[in-house]
Amino acid sequence: MSLALDATAQDLLFREAHTASTFTDEPVTDEQVQAIYDLVKNAPTAFNQSPLRITLVRSEEARRRLVKHAMGANGPKTLTAPLTVVLSVDLDFHEKLPRLFPHAPDIKDAFFSELATREAAGTQNATLQAGYFILGIRAAGLAAGPMTGFDFTGIDKEFFGDGKQKSFLVINLGKPGTDAFSPRSPRLEFDEAATTV
Amino acid sequence: MSLALDATAQDLLFREAHTASTFTDEPVTDEQVQAIYDLVKNAPTAFNQSPLRITLVRSEEARRRLVKHAMGANGPKTLTAPLTVVLSVDLDFHEKLPRLFPHAPDIKDAFFSELATREAAGTQNATLQAGYFILGIRAAGLAAGPMTGFDFTGIDKEFFGDGKQKSFLVINLGKPGTDAFSPRSPRLEFDEAATTV
Repeated sequence: MSLALDATAQDLLFREAHTASTFTDEPVTDEQVQAIYDLVKNAPTAFNQSPLRITLVRSEEARRRLVKHAMGANGPKTLTAPLTVVLSVDLDFHEKLPRLFPHAPDIKDAFFSELATREAAGTQNATLQAGYFILGIRAAGLAAGPMTGFDFTGIDKEFFGDGKQKSFLVINLGKPGTDAFSPRSPRLEFDEAATTV
Repeated sequence: MSLALDATAQDLLFREAHTASTFTDEPVTDEQVQAIYDLVKNAPTAFNQSPLRITLVRSEEARRRLVKHAMGANGPKTLTAPLTVVLSVDLDFHEKLPRLFPHAPDIKDAFFSELATREAAGTQNATLQAGYFILGIRAAGLAAGPMTGFDFTGIDKEFFGDGKQKSFLVINLGKPGTDAFSPRSPRLEFDEAATTV
């Protein structure tokens, strides 16, 4: 079964790409991150709510504040990556909805006046965007090392003191270094993951 | 700033692709869905937990049972799509971890013995996989119409009576039909979505 996506792109994004745990010293520039963002921003979110926020952790001081909240090997991995980003949900994403969803500006108040609703919808849609972003890192010719082993409540207090952003994923990115990749673990067969009704 | 991903693939997956609200009658085969799955299954989840489950709603009877739980225009849209899939989280994904994460088989019990932990981690990782899956639909040369406007508790009772799966997204897929696309709404600028610390 052939896909419309060419084989080179399939390999770059999915088949040959691997989560990296080590990186070279080659810097990751703001321009590269912007190119990733400008690609993946086009992928869909519900009502175009676009709640994902990206914090580029560049300074040595910010990096040290981040790794205080890392679990296990994620701290040392993060200290040696050329760039680390914290992905978070903007809990006030609705403020931008009249501009992002101009054909139904009333949705801001009709659907999203409650914080709990925004947190649920924002988390779901920012997580979809995180999936797009991981593939976008690969589209830029870089390797991603996504990590959930952090104290995200601690990160939020450390970096988002106003309580308006909730972090949920930390990603190291760069060119893969020595022994960057573990062998790929097995995946579920189609018949295990899919059912027809 | 050039990306490693070729421009044709950028257009197919991100820049020219749009959420579709109408579709042609051309069928979407099981082989196409499997090709999508076999591509996107490679993208990462935490501990390779791979909690996403895909329900292909094929029979007319199942389609009718699904649209009972649709809100607004999502019912009529779903009735005219050649194929609709329900994406859900397998709350018992941990049962497969000894096979999926063979170098640390103790993780199943050490990390995932609690249902609440599995629901949180499973929902996050299945949602990442949903992001990959939406791009996979486009990689197959099809258009996706992801929808969150459903009563997912109702879908779960209707299709997953054992309480072991929680649905969170419904996607119509097929070749785009007449007037399938709305104009793209604005996206946030990089400086609005990203901050450097």
